[in-house]
Amino acid sequence: MRATTLHAPGDIRVSEVPDPTIQQPTDAIVKVYAACICGSDLWPYRGENPIRSGQTIGHECIGEVVEVGPDVRDITTGDFVVVPFCHCDNTCPHCQVGMQSVCDHLDVTASGQAELARVAQADGSLVRTDADPDPARTRSLLALTDVMATGWHAAVAARVQPGHTVVVVGDGAVGLSGVIAASVMGAEWIVAMSRHEPRQKLAVELGATHVVAARGKEGAAEVDEITGGVGADAVLECVGTDSSMGTAFAVARPGAMVGFVGVPHGVELPVRRMFAKNVGLAGGMAPVRRYLPELLDLVDSGRIDPGRVFDAEVPLDDVAEGYRLMDQREAIKVVVRP
Amino acid sequence: MRATTLHAPGDIRVSEVPDPTIQQPTDAIVKVYAACICGSDLWPYRGENPIRSGQTIGHECIGEVVEVGPDVRDITTGDFVVVPFCHCDNTCPHCQVGMQSVCDHLDVTASGQAELARVAQADGSLVRTDADPDPARTRSLLALTDVMATGWHAAVAARVQPGHTVVVVGDGAVGLSGVIAASVMGAEWIVAMSRHEPRQKLAVELGATHVVAARGKEGAAEVDEITGGVGADAVLECVGTDSSMGTAFAVARPGAMVGFVGVPHGVELPVRRMFAKNVGLAGGMAPVRRYLPELLDLVDSGRIDPGRVFDAEVPLDDVAEGYRLMDQREAIKVVVRP
Repeated sequence: MRATTLHAPGDIRVSEVPDPTIQQPTDAIVKVYAACICGSDLWPYRGENPIRSGQTIGHECIGEVVEVGPDVRDITTGDFVVVPFCHCDNTCPHCQVGMQSVCDHLDVTASGQAELARVAQADGSLVRTDADPDPARTRSLLALTDVMATGWHAAVAARVQPGHTVVVVGDGAVGLSGVIAASVMGAEWIVAMSRHEPRQKLAVELGATHVVAARGKEGAAEVDEITGGVGADAVLECVGTDSSMGTAFAVARPGAMVGFVGVPHGVELPVRRMFAKNVGLAGGMAPVRRYLPELLDLVDSGRIDPGRVFDAEVPLDDVAEGYRLMDQREAIKVVVRP
Repeated sequence: MRATTLHAPGDIRVSEVPDPTIQQPTDAIVKVYAACICGSDLWPYRGENPIRSGQTIGHECIGEVVEVGPDVRDITTGDFVVVPFCHCDNTCPHCQVGMQSVCDHLDVTASGQAELARVAQADGSLVRTDADPDPARTRSLLALTDVMATGWHAAVAARVQPGHTVVVVGDGAVGLSGVIAASVMGAEWIVAMSRHEPRQKLAVELGATHVVAARGKEGAAEVDEITGGVGADAVLECVGTDSSMGTAFAVARPGAMVGFVGVPHGVELPVRRMFAKNVGLAGGMAPVRRYLPELLDLVDSGRIDPGRVFDAEVPLDDVAEGYRLMDQREAIKVVVRP
C-alpha cells in the first residue's frame, strides 16, 4: 500500500510498504477514508523524538473495516468507523474506570496517513457511524480520533464546571478543541491564550470570550486583570512545554486544577508553588474511546463542530506539503486524503 | 508570658517573652488551654528550615479568648475556641471556594506552645465549642487544629470515594488522620504504609485494613499484590519527601489522584509518569477552617477520635523533652500543657 513514511528529520515521503495484516485474532484492518496530521507528529518530523528510518506515521483516521480477526464479534467488514488513536479492549480494570489510554491491551494506530491501518482490539476500540461523505462531518469525525477527545480530556481533568472561568493555554487544534469543550461544559468565561490572529478569531468563534496574546508573566497579569485578581477556576494546558506549564500554573486560582494533555517535553513541575496555592494537576494521554459516544452525539446533533480546526487538505501524495504547512504554522491542522 | 522559643538547631527552651497584643482590629488573643508539637516543627528544630534565634514556635492550640480587637463581632471574651493553625477572613474569594489556606488575609498561629497566642481574623478563623475538660476530647480538639484537618484534606484532594482502595503513605499523626478520613469517607480497603509496630497497630485500630512495612519498589509490589495488580484508587501522601512522593505515584492506579499534604522538601515530580499513567496530584496546606465544623461534629458525635494520635504529654516547662520524644520517634505526637 501507499503510506506516509519518515526517514530523517524533515524527510517525509509517500512510500510503497507491505499491507498491514491481522496479527492478533482481535485485530481489524481499516481502509482509510480520511486521515490527518497531528501536532505530535511534528516532534519526530523535527527530530525532537527518535526516528526509525522508514517508519510509517499518522495515528488519526476514519474509514471502512475491510478485514477482521476471528475473535472480533461486534465489528464487521463494511462498517464505517471512527478509529481512536489509542486502541483498548474496553473491558480491563483500567478501561472500566474510564482510563482506556492505559488499557492492559493498549496499542496505537501506526499507519493512519496511509491506505490501510491495523487496529488492535477492534471490538473495544472502534465506534461505528454513518459513512456520510459530507466534508464538514468528515473533518469533525477526524477530530474525534484525537484532538477533540484530547481537548475534552483536558477539560475533564481540570474539572470544568458551569460558571467557571477557564483559561486555555495553547492555540493548536487541541487548545481550540479545549475551547469547544469548556464551552459545552458551561464555562462562563473562556480565555484563549493565543498570539496568532487567525487562531484568535477561530477561538472566539468556537466560544472564547477573551483572547490574551501575551505569554509568561505578562500574560498571567492580563488574566489576573480579567479575573479581578482571582485567577482561573480551571486551566487547560494544551502544549506540553515548560513555559506553557509555567503559564498554566501562573494563571490558576488557589484550589484550581490544571488539566494537561500536551506530551511533556522538558517540563519541571513547580511543586512548592502547587503546594502553596493548592493548585492540582491531572491529565495525560486522552482515553479517547471513553469520550467517543458522547462526542459523536454532540457532532451529530450539531452542538459541536470540531472539524473547524482543520484549515487545509492535501492528497496523500502531497503529505510532505501538509507537514510543511503545519511545521511553519501556516495551517492549524491538515486533512490527508488517501 | 512563658513561651517555647527556638535558638539554634536542637536548642529549644521556655523563655519569658512579651505578651502578644492586638495588632489589627480583627485580632483576638487566646489564653492557651492545651497545645501540641507538630511534625513540621521538627524541620526548624533539626535545622532543615532557617531559624531566627529566639523565635516563638507552635501553631496548634485550643483555649479561651481573653481579648478581642474593636472589629471582632462574633467571637467574644470568654469563648472557648479551636484555633485553626492558619487564620482566614472566611469571606474572600478564595475562602468562598474553600481555600481558606490561601486567604487574602492569611496568617498563622505563631506562639501556640505558650501561654497566649494571637489570632488574626478572629471572626473568620475561630470556631467556638464547649470548654469540656475531658482529656480525650481535649486531644481530639487539638488534632483538629492541624493534623486531622490535614489528613482530611489529603483525602479530599485524592477524591476518596466509597468503595475505594486507599493507600496512605506516612505513619505520622497526619498519615494516621488520613486513615481516619479515608475510613469515614467509606473506603473499602485502606493500606497504611508503616514500618513502626506501634503505629501499625494504631493505624489498624483507626481503620486500616492492610499494613505494608516495605518502602519504595518493594512496598509498591506489595500494594500491587493487595490490589490484584491494579493499584490504589486514591493515595494520601503525608510525608513530603521525594521518596515518599515516589512511592505514592508507584502505588497509584491509572486515573488515580495523589493527595499531598506534607510540605515538599526536595521533591521532583515524575511528570512523564504522571502523564503516561494519567495520575494526578492535588493538595497543599489544608484549609483547616473549611473542615472544622464538620470535623467538630464528627468528634462530638463520637464517630472519630483523632486525639488517639497523641501518645505523650508534657508540661510547657518540659517542652524540650516533648521535641526530643518526637525527634527520636519515641512519640507520635505530644500534648503541651501551659
